[in-house]
Amino acid sequence: METDSLLAGSINVDSQDYGAAEHGQPDNGSHRSRSRTPHSVGDNESCPVEGGDKTLYMQQAVVFIEDAIHYRSINHRVDASSLCLHRWYYSRLCQWGLGLAIGVVLLLAFVEHPSSLSSTSDPRYRLPPWEPPCGLTESIEGLCLFVFALDLAVKSYLIGWEEFRKSKWLIGYTVVLTASIIDWMLSISMECDEKLRVRRLLRPFFLLQNSSLMKKTLKCIKRTLPEIASVILLLALHLCLFTMIGMLLFAKTEEPERNGEWELYFRNLPQALTSLLVLLTTANNPDVMIPAYTLNRGYSIFFITFSVFGTYFLMNLLTAIIYNQFRGYLMMSVQTSILRRRLGIRAAFQVLSCQGTSAAIIEQVRVDTVLEVMYRVNMKSYYKAAIIKEVQQHAADVHMDHKVFGALFEQLDKDRVKEHPAPPQYSNAFLQKIQFIFSHYYTTLAGNAVALANVICICTILVLNAERSTAERDYYYLEVINCCFIFWYLLEMSLKILAFGLRGYLSYRNNVFDGFLTILLMVLQITILVNYSVPFSKKQPVSHAVMSLWDLVRLVNLLIVFRFLRIIPDIKLMNLVASTLLDLVKNLRAFAGILVVVFYVFAVFGIWLFEGAIKPPTSMSIISNSTMDNITSNYSTTCGTYEQLEYWPNNFDDFAAAIILLYNIMVVNNWQAFMDAYSRYTTEWAKVYFVCWWLTSSVMWVNLFVALILENFIYKWDHSHSCSMTDMERTRYETSVQLMFKEHIEEPTEEELLRQLQQHPHLHIHLQLLQAKNPPQLTHVLGVGNKSKKVAESFTRAFIANSMKKSAAPFMEDTLSRKAVILEYTREKRPKAKRKRKGGKGLSAGEKRRLKVFDIKPEHQRYELFLPLHNLWKQYIISICNGLRPLSSPQLVQQKLLKADFHGAILTVVRSKCPSYVGTTGILVQEFKHTFKIITKEDRLKVIPKKNSVFAVEVNGFVSHVYGSKFEYRASERSVKKFKVKGSIDL
Amino acid sequence: METDSLLAGSINVDSQDYGAAEHGQPDNGSHRSRSRTPHSVGDNESCPVEGGDKTLYMQQAVVFIEDAIHYRSINHRVDASSLCLHRWYYSRLCQWGLGLAIGVVLLLAFVEHPSSLSSTSDPRYRLPPWEPPCGLTESIEGLCLFVFALDLAVKSYLIGWEEFRKSKWLIGYTVVLTASIIDWMLSISMECDEKLRVRRLLRPFFLLQNSSLMKKTLKCIKRTLPEIASVILLLALHLCLFTMIGMLLFAKTEEPERNGEWELYFRNLPQALTSLLVLLTTANNPDVMIPAYTLNRGYSIFFITFSVFGTYFLMNLLTAIIYNQFRGYLMMSVQTSILRRRLGIRAAFQVLSCQGTSAAIIEQVRVDTVLEVMYRVNMKSYYKAAIIKEVQQHAADVHMDHKVFGALFEQLDKDRVKEHPAPPQYSNAFLQKIQFIFSHYYTTLAGNAVALANVICICTILVLNAERSTAERDYYYLEVINCCFIFWYLLEMSLKILAFGLRGYLSYRNNVFDGFLTILLMVLQITILVNYSVPFSKKQPVSHAVMSLWDLVRLVNLLIVFRFLRIIPDIKLMNLVASTLLDLVKNLRAFAGILVVVFYVFAVFGIWLFEGAIKPPTSMSIISNSTMDNITSNYSTTCGTYEQLEYWPNNFDDFAAAIILLYNIMVVNNWQAFMDAYSRYTTEWAKVYFVCWWLTSSVMWVNLFVALILENFIYKWDHSHSCSMTDMERTRYETSVQLMFKEHIEEPTEEELLRQLQQHPHLHIHLQLLQAKNPPQLTHVLGVGNKSKKVAESFTRAFIANSMKKSAAPFMEDTLSRKAVILEYTREKRPKAKRKRKGGKGLSAGEKRRLKVFDIKPEHQRYELFLPLHNLWKQYIISICNGLRPLSSPQLVQQKLLKADFHGAILTVVRSKCPSYVGTTGILVQEFKHTFKIITKEDRLKVIPKKNSVFAVEVNGFVSHVYGSKFEYRASERSVKKFKVKGSIDL
Repeated sequence: METDSLLAGSINVDSQDYGAAEHGQPDNGSHRSRSRTPHSVGDNESCPVEGGDKTLYMQQAVVFIEDAIHYRSINHRVDASSLCLHRWYYSRLCQWGLGLAIGVVLLLAFVEHPSSLSSTSDPRYRLPPWEPPCGLTESIEGLCLFVFALDLAVKSYLIGWEEFRKSKWLIGYTVVLTASIIDWMLSISMECDEKLRVRRLLRPFFLLQNSSLMKKTLKCIKRTLPEIASVILLLALHLCLFTMIGMLLFAKTEEPERNGEWELYFRNLPQALTSLLVLLTTANNPDVMIPAYTLNRGYSIFFITFSVFGTYFLMNLLTAIIYNQFRGYLMMSVQTSILRRRLGIRAAFQVLSCQGTSAAIIEQVRVDTVLEVMYRVNMKSYYKAAIIKEVQQHAADVHMDHKVFGALFEQLDKDRVKEHPAPPQYSNAFLQKIQFIFSHYYTTLAGNAVALANVICICTILVLNAERSTAERDYYYLEVINCCFIFWYLLEMSLKILAFGLRGYLSYRNNVFDGFLTILLMVLQITILVNYSVPFSKKQPVSHAVMSLWDLVRLVNLLIVFRFLRIIPDIKLMNLVASTLLDLVKNLRAFAGILVVVFYVFAVFGIWLFEGAIKPPTSMSIISNSTMDNITSNYSTTCGTYEQLEYWPNNFDDFAAAIILLYNIMVVNNWQAFMDAYSRYTTEWAKVYFVCWWLTSSVMWVNLFVALILENFIYKWDHSHSCSMTDMERTRYETSVQLMFKEHIEEPTEEELLRQLQQHPHLHIHLQLLQAKNPPQLTHVLGVGNKSKKVAESFTRAFIANSMKKSAAPFMEDTLSRKAVILEYTREKRPKAKRKRKGGKGLSAGEKRRLKVFDIKPEHQRYELFLPLHNLWKQYIISICNGLRPLSSPQLVQQKLLKADFHGAILTVVRSKCPSYVGTTGILVQEFKHTFKIITKEDRLKVIPKKNSVFAVEVNGFVSHVYGSKFEYRASERSVKKFKVKGSIDL
Repeated sequence: METDSLLAGSINVDSQDYGAAEHGQPDNGSHRSRSRTPHSVGDNESCPVEGGDKTLYMQQAVVFIEDAIHYRSINHRVDASSLCLHRWYYSRLCQWGLGLAIGVVLLLAFVEHPSSLSSTSDPRYRLPPWEPPCGLTESIEGLCLFVFALDLAVKSYLIGWEEFRKSKWLIGYTVVLTASIIDWMLSISMECDEKLRVRRLLRPFFLLQNSSLMKKTLKCIKRTLPEIASVILLLALHLCLFTMIGMLLFAKTEEPERNGEWELYFRNLPQALTSLLVLLTTANNPDVMIPAYTLNRGYSIFFITFSVFGTYFLMNLLTAIIYNQFRGYLMMSVQTSILRRRLGIRAAFQVLSCQGTSAAIIEQVRVDTVLEVMYRVNMKSYYKAAIIKEVQQHAADVHMDHKVFGALFEQLDKDRVKEHPAPPQYSNAFLQKIQFIFSHYYTTLAGNAVALANVICICTILVLNAERSTAERDYYYLEVINCCFIFWYLLEMSLKILAFGLRGYLSYRNNVFDGFLTILLMVLQITILVNYSVPFSKKQPVSHAVMSLWDLVRLVNLLIVFRFLRIIPDIKLMNLVASTLLDLVKNLRAFAGILVVVFYVFAVFGIWLFEGAIKPPTSMSIISNSTMDNITSNYSTTCGTYEQLEYWPNNFDDFAAAIILLYNIMVVNNWQAFMDAYSRYTTEWAKVYFVCWWLTSSVMWVNLFVALILENFIYKWDHSHSCSMTDMERTRYETSVQLMFKEHIEEPTEEELLRQLQQHPHLHIHLQLLQAKNPPQLTHVLGVGNKSKKVAESFTRAFIANSMKKSAAPFMEDTLSRKAVILEYTREKRPKAKRKRKGGKGLSAGEKRRLKVFDIKPEHQRYELFLPLHNLWKQYIISICNGLRPLSSPQLVQQKLLKADFHGAILTVVRSKCPSYVGTTGILVQEFKHTFKIITKEDRLKVIPKKNSVFAVEVNGFVSHVYGSKFEYRASERSVKKFKVKGSIDL
């Protein structure tokens, strides 16, 4: 079905020339060569040019609707086999397989050479871990790489070569994949012996490129970088200045007892810089000032000034900058998704509309076709049923137009109200009473109280037993109490099931949580009873089962504590906070992904740099539990904080340990210990790695996180306050994103949709374009003669492309050619920006000026050219003045004239402060706020300021005087302006 | 001049009864008794009732205008002597004296008994400090208390007893002052020997009550507390759950080597709670998990889960909540200030307007009076000149009304553009060339480059000399280089003065900074040259001056480094950040004040609790520089982090040390060391004090600070982006706050101003009120007869008070009765709230329903009462239908009727889905969106839904049918609605 037509080709060429200036290279030849079946250009053609195969159209429509549902781009191939491939590629199984491959390839890092499969990462106790045999991880990796190659191939094929070339991410994907495969083959050929495996560093790329949200977040971060850089520059300046001041203050003196500060923190430039950088993170806060502070109180001022300014002001300013950049970021995503959805639906309509009625001008689709398509679409059954029901309501109309068609899919944006199944009806009075009691709200409260009591019991016993070892404890009372409580829980559960019915019980989420834990508790309790029997002897047999009694009891207690969380939905404020957190987790996926990428890269890099760098003293492994004076006396030369605090398990010897170490640095506290240790054991330059990681994780990522929390919370809070009545209800139902944003998002306009559709690289829908007729005698003058359809069309498209805002288009296009995005809850965008956007559909005044929209070419500045306009204007004035009979009152005509459009009128300057204007006569061709542009009979273009001039306008003998000073409005503004008929005029 | 009239009294009583419901107690008797000169109630009286003394009015006007300028409340006494007192009290000297007294009383804490006047706070080295002799501090304090007593007396007198009783802050002031004086006398009588001086705890109150901004911030914080509490509750729950899980996980086992975690962090409940609480602040991050993590990697999950959820999610949620509460807080303050200013100006106008023309109805003031008043007002000379100039422009009009008068003072809101004096004109060509070169922008850049070069030189020499002691260094090169640079700086300065002229040079702020430092540098350099002469011998004489050579050189270098800051205004982004910081400092005064209060209270409390609690081992003072193994071996039993890290100078032994200690806890890092030490040396309960301080400072205050930075920065950023062109320019000029907010603040309405003026407790302005005449025959029915003026007035006031929004009034009133507030820059308030506010000038639908605005009393439900309305309506319809002649086209009438108001029409239900409605006829008395309320001839009120009914309307024989289903709009909405004349009607 690859029947690209000549027209299709030419449209593409046109759009490259005019509309889509971002393509860059016209490349006509190669493009034209792809079109195989030449096709004549019909006048009334309003269909894709592929043949009239009904099933193909149906298939296309189905795929477009599916794209719309999942917010996917529709810019893919649309022939039958490609569509099958597309549906197969986006089937749940395939996408799941791809996700699995990404997961597996990332998880390999735990198993590969510095294997993390040991119980501890402390080099003193670590046993040699199980290393996978050579070839095992490599073969798994090879499999994954094969999956990626397949993914790349399918993706590239589906979007076509043209789009592929434009997509930087796809090219990057190719490069990374190639590099990985080469590295993999190298690894195979060297029998798993090479030191640095580059492909480990490249792996996170597979995760990145598969998520459009992450790519977008990355772009957002990239945009923020310049501003962050400026603050970091300021921080650097601050640091440098204070380092110099510090070195001046704490110079080495003659008296050795006053050199404490110099010796420990300001001995040389790198040390001084490090000390103050660490102070910026507050990680060495009181320590760094203690030696100087011991000598004199005054020195504390230096440190306090530094950290107040640096930590509180500048670091928080960074938060503010990042938050400022990320405001409205979620909202924007939703906006893009909506555009994609509308586009998909519109495309489906266009495809269906030409089926059968290829000659019809009015675009319509048959209702039965729509119904058939809907049956074939894969979507959630609830929405499918709703849409089909709606379609059937239109069955009487036979056809539907695009508005009705679009309205069908508004069902998708609607809230799905989750209804709980009706409770069962009991005839027995006793059962009814039980049902009433246990479906009452107070029962839930009582249940919470019992859960609290249980937790308190456990807590009390724990506190009483805190000093005893696990073997010495007496489990008898604890077990008896737990048994009673668990029995009560079971009773509560069964009575609730009785009250609500099983399905009703399970339709509440917290009941599911509750019931699951209760059953688990019961099973565990039975296990305990079977294995250890009642009464528990004080000396129970030592672990004759898989788990010891203590382990089982511990598990039971943990579950009981965990079950206590059921109280959260019943406390309103906690509910709000908890639901904010839940939303946050949803929106956090992109950030978490980027965090994973960053962690992964730094961990792999850290392993490569520092693997095995720190070797604990061998004697230590024997006397590990000895007191500290032993350690210090043996290793007094190299004893830093790291050794004193026994941070040995934090090292770069395997992947898992590296992750934990990086996390500890992200948390910032005591990170200087790691930096110090590694710079002592390796070189001073190790500090660079740690500072980089600190900047990336703690400064960048944590601030991003704060920004996201602020964004989410503030939106959520506003939302919960604006509908506080139904707050409790609402959180229990599923709320779709679009509904929450409904008042803030803008629906894409018809024009936008059609323009996007026309730019589709594979589907060529020919839409009707405007074309007016010019009087033949003017054709040669204006150069806009009745060209062929094709030229006219290209002109129109170019005109539209020129008149539309340029800045928005590339961004939109860019986001449109990626995968779908679903996000939830943000606060509304700032009103200023919005107002601006709304008003600025067209070009701004500045842009118009730059494009010279208002300039009239010299060859067009001819009086005769504008005479027809003047005649038109006369007709217009006569019609609005009700015929302009000689008897009409002058006031009335005056009133009408004041609000009329003057373009085309013959104006004469009768009075003016500037005498040279007086007497100028001509046809008004353009009216601006402060000036008239007129063409005189001598074919001269004159610009006359309105201010301080009086103009005479003549219509069929009526001469009206216009006071320019009172007329300083744009033509469009004047029509709604109230004029006073009389007024003092000062010239 | 205390001539309160009867009328004044009665107005007050009325306003207490109706308008100002918040007063609570009517208290007529005592109030009436205050009015001394009975005064007859005139009809046209529009003046304050005090006698017609012209100078008094002038004085009042002057004071009101001064109040307006400084945004002060005008609710003070207005008689001549009080006005003098008022002007004296608010004179710069008095206010400065009061501020000084507050400062002195706060600073006393440094000198009093645990005196901070020692060079170090380390108990090992501390010499006994100088203690002031008994009676010195007490006498100073007594003086300050006397000043406060005077302040309180004047303040109370000025606002009057009525207002004093209502002001909680003033009552608090009295109580605190009394307590302080009693405590002070006790202290005197015990000869400075009592242990706890309560008045030290009370002192910060004096600071608080003197700043309205702080009081407002406190109120804001109070409002935020419930939400903060909910998150803290969640945090507590989180902490408790994880403590239980931790105690279950890390229970004592049989094998002692696996008990590390239990022993160190989870031995018992308080220890486990403390460990996890400290982990929440990340202060013991890697340490707390090390023992468990050494055993097994898996345990790290517990700690990471805890801190990610607690620290990252919940703590940041706290930030979000606080930020959310503080959004718009600055904006609101500006709004209040504007109201105060307008009120003051309006009051001045009212006072002036009745002077001389006491019988005139139209309120006007004479221009010459205004001019005279303006000459007597104390204000900035620039604005004074501008306003007087404006007044003189109106000299021709003799009188001005309140609008013109108000407009005069808009000068105050305007930007004062700071103009630099013109550079001097030189005739000499050489001088002109120099002038051109040195006023060029590149010269500034070159100057910056030279400054940078100097800093780099110093840095290089510092790095080279880092390891040498101060005595060993060679100062020759450094001094030579510095001399050269300082010479260049002097040259640059003098040439710039030549180029700009001295006044022109000083009009740039960075030139002042630059010039001052340059002169200081020159002085220092000359001192060095004089004292130590050139060339510096390697062995200079040991400090034969006050400062050693090194000290002087150090000072020079510090100043040079400091001077380098002049580059900031020349880098754009840095300029923005720096100016944000400067703005922040202005807005921060309130927060800083509250911080001072909190620090003060906690420090005094801490000294009382912990003074001298920690005693360093005496042997330490001798071998303080010995190595660590000595320490540990001697004091292994009580050796915690505090002792190991030698935190001795951080203690509660004097005020200064306590402040530093509290600061260190606020910074959070290693705060557990202090908590641990003090709980070991005193009792476990000491932890409560530290946790409280952590919550107050680190959790509350730091988050408030972040909120403020966000607020400031985002507004500033938006502002700088919206006017990025003139950004550089703008920051150099003084921009007034009001100008920045101009588009966002709402001007108070006329009505609001007058209402506020009427509620003035001392000035009694009688304003004209609306009173319509009712037809006499209806008077008895409606119960709104032509009562006496007084009653009518009270009715009107009550009606206004009822119809106005209640929620806003108390808040406004409350903020109005405090001192002025000047704040700068906030971002605009959220548009939703704004829109709501704008739309909601009146009552909301719900409020109307609650107030039963729409209810018609049963006794008024009479057909005859509404017949006049029907006649009125008929006239109205006939007039809009151009006379309704028999020949008028039915379509036209129909069209007119569709948009007409129907109140008063006689409606008949002709068709309806509900048959019982059919035939009902009556006068329409109220039209709602979905229903008509009609009064039938039988005097019954009927509510008929519009939906599914057809109504007939009859006007002079024309019968028009109205389809209710198409008519479901409010009357006001319908008039702008487009109706289709024909349409399908389904009943």
